[in-house]
Amino acid sequence: MKALCVISGGMDSAVAAAIARREGYEILGLHFDYKQRTQSRERQCFYDICSDLGAKSFVFDASFIAGIGGSALTDLSLEVPKNRKELFEGAKKSEPPITYVPFRNGIFLSIAVALAQKEGCEAVFLGLVEEDSSGYPDCSADFLAKMTAAIQSGTGTKIELIAPLIAKNKGQIVKIGTELGVDFSHTYSCYESDIKPCGACDSCKLRARGFGVAGIKDPVS
Amino acid sequence: MKALCVISGGMDSAVAAAIARREGYEILGLHFDYKQRTQSRERQCFYDICSDLGAKSFVFDASFIAGIGGSALTDLSLEVPKNRKELFEGAKKSEPPITYVPFRNGIFLSIAVALAQKEGCEAVFLGLVEEDSSGYPDCSADFLAKMTAAIQSGTGTKIELIAPLIAKNKGQIVKIGTELGVDFSHTYSCYESDIKPCGACDSCKLRARGFGVAGIKDPVS
Repeated sequence: MKALCVISGGMDSAVAAAIARREGYEILGLHFDYKQRTQSRERQCFYDICSDLGAKSFVFDASFIAGIGGSALTDLSLEVPKNRKELFEGAKKSEPPITYVPFRNGIFLSIAVALAQKEGCEAVFLGLVEEDSSGYPDCSADFLAKMTAAIQSGTGTKIELIAPLIAKNKGQIVKIGTELGVDFSHTYSCYESDIKPCGACDSCKLRARGFGVAGIKDPVS
Repeated sequence: MKALCVISGGMDSAVAAAIARREGYEILGLHFDYKQRTQSRERQCFYDICSDLGAKSFVFDASFIAGIGGSALTDLSLEVPKNRKELFEGAKKSEPPITYVPFRNGIFLSIAVALAQKEGCEAVFLGLVEEDSSGYPDCSADFLAKMTAAIQSGTGTKIELIAPLIAKNKGQIVKIGTELGVDFSHTYSCYESDIKPCGACDSCKLRARGFGVAGIKDPVS
């Protein structure tokens, strides 16, 4: 029983992969490089996480994503937003934030499914989190259900997409990961800096809140 | 009104793009290089087709697809099947053929939609053909409908996937293309050789039958 785990190097996908491992799957890890600002740090975290899980690792070059442009994660002429009020104050999230890479999860999922089919995996595990995900439309349970239907039709398989954290928040994810023995020093979340977390981007803020709520010290901060 | 047309260099996507043009869309052309055997010839056809349509052109490197492996289109250790009986004799198509690149259309579509969203396109046009398509599961109308639902959910847009040839056969496609003034000398179909069509792979056979049924001479053969 094999599962392909898409592992970004962030905490959510590391915990999702640890859940797959606990459920008894043999793990194959897949990571994407796409010229994001924090590419080298994230890739190192990926290799560390795969090593922790005894997983075979695949790294694919998805740098065409930077060619699409339109996101502050890959376009260095755009600024990563800091200390956004909308993040925690219940403001309407009508527009995706500037860190949104158009349909990034759809692209990553499609590629992951192709590799899963080739490698004979029954499932693809993802670290998607709906509530905590900066309002990206391709992080929703609705998207995931529809994508599953498309993938099963388009591959002629019953490959399942499993996002065990989709309805969790960052505090719960820290707790689950801690119970499963995830080494959070092998994860990285900042959108902006490769060297040390900026502490002010959406992703740093969400991570800090998660560790705060869980009452656990973040080994990376 | 803008449409992103995924243009492989084959005849189907060239005709689909010509249909989009006739419907009044401004055309953006997108082509994928993925280390397929006939990559350089297909890319040249793509540029010629874009030039014929007055289209802005985008070429993305999708060579990670060769890294997935499992298809005779990209894996030079596998043989491209020749003169397959199943192609025309109504044999059951229970297994995808060895030229199948796992979920290739799903991957290409996901990337195309991301670019379409960035460029403000209302539609993505595709050359998918269900009946004539070597039995690939990601060439079906069912897949397309489900992928449309996934894409609209995952992008928060109403981008439409339009496959105007999905229910046509190659003979009809040659006729429609001829009526629209498509220059078929700017298209290429062979799976195996970059230099001249082998005449025996599935794709060459389907093309030859199409021109034969339409009673039109193929300028490439």
